[in-house]
Amino acid sequence: MDEIGTTERTRHRRFRENGSHDRADLDAVLAAGFVCHLGVVVDGTPMVVPTCYGATRDALYFHGSVASRSLRADPAAEVCVTVTHVDGLILARSVFEHGVNYRSAMVYGTPRVLTGDEKLTGLRVLTEQCAPGQWDYARRPSRKELAATTVMALDLTEASVKISTGPPDDGEGPDAELGLWAGNVPMRTVTGTPVPAPDLAAGIALPPHIAAMGEGAL
Amino acid sequence: MDEIGTTERTRHRRFRENGSHDRADLDAVLAAGFVCHLGVVVDGTPMVVPTCYGATRDALYFHGSVASRSLRADPAAEVCVTVTHVDGLILARSVFEHGVNYRSAMVYGTPRVLTGDEKLTGLRVLTEQCAPGQWDYARRPSRKELAATTVMALDLTEASVKISTGPPDDGEGPDAELGLWAGNVPMRTVTGTPVPAPDLAAGIALPPHIAAMGEGAL
Repeated sequence: MDEIGTTERTRHRRFRENGSHDRADLDAVLAAGFVCHLGVVVDGTPMVVPTCYGATRDALYFHGSVASRSLRADPAAEVCVTVTHVDGLILARSVFEHGVNYRSAMVYGTPRVLTGDEKLTGLRVLTEQCAPGQWDYARRPSRKELAATTVMALDLTEASVKISTGPPDDGEGPDAELGLWAGNVPMRTVTGTPVPAPDLAAGIALPPHIAAMGEGAL
Repeated sequence: MDEIGTTERTRHRRFRENGSHDRADLDAVLAAGFVCHLGVVVDGTPMVVPTCYGATRDALYFHGSVASRSLRADPAAEVCVTVTHVDGLILARSVFEHGVNYRSAMVYGTPRVLTGDEKLTGLRVLTEQCAPGQWDYARRPSRKELAATTVMALDLTEASVKISTGPPDDGEGPDAELGLWAGNVPMRTVTGTPVPAPDLAAGIALPPHIAAMGEGAL
């Protein structure tokens, strides 16, 4: 997707402060998913781990056992959290102009390990982004469970957003004369009907907020 | 998804040689997608970039402009390439046991910059994994386009696979008595009907191999 001829088609902006006119793009990309790829440096080499996140206007929250390995070695160690949504394939007349429509956000910084009320807030935000309604419905973490969980926050002060949309752009020039089909193949993530656990006791109805999760596209 | 109580539910194996009985898992995860997250270290900090890849039995191929930034600084620099497929949400009785069903592969190593025939092979594998049939259908790269493209190969000699499947596993114990619904919400990526470019000349039919891309779930 990077480097597959999409340069002209791709908006790419990096900003270091809030209030940017691209801030809405960042918020929208972060709101549209719940799985990120967390990059850390461990013993000098990069490690990229998929994990769940939740985002507010100010911070991105995620579980911290992987990141804490790098932070133990260096409390100022930076991480990079990337969220990507693939929206489709761009099929151009030439292989060179092929690409992917996508929305991606990268957030950089040194995460903080949360404690106390802020830790609970982080867990709530994370849970609600993955499974809206479950924080109020499911049993909340016990003191022991909380102690066994590391939650981190990464401030949304340094981030970049890349958005690539639209059809292929090689419709002018010699390639247009080749008589080849060009266009895009849309892609999206959809959720299916919720499946009850095999050991679910009889008579427990599917709550409306879970039924709603199974009704749409992310 | 890591660290959301899925530890017991998750198979996680790391292997450093081919022939492992988990090798089939690695091949299946890599075959099921075409977008990876590439982690590199640039000036000491991690950077995670989404990009397209193609995989054979021996290597993973990807475009190289980002990775080459880190390799210029250190030709032996390692990268980490992670491929993740999200298969659904695990909604347990407790927030602590919530999780995600997913399949993920991480491949580690120092990538090689390809030249000559191997570069063309890499581009073909990459193109065919993203858009099967397009290498033979679309116009192949010109000499100039090839020169403008960096293609890298990462050998599949050091990798790990994590696969998390199945229902929540808190059906025994006190939480099962809470009377809460538990189960999973399946998720998958689907492709839609191919959309012709607005500037597509009249009379160019949709080729069967592109029509086929729009007919299924990834």
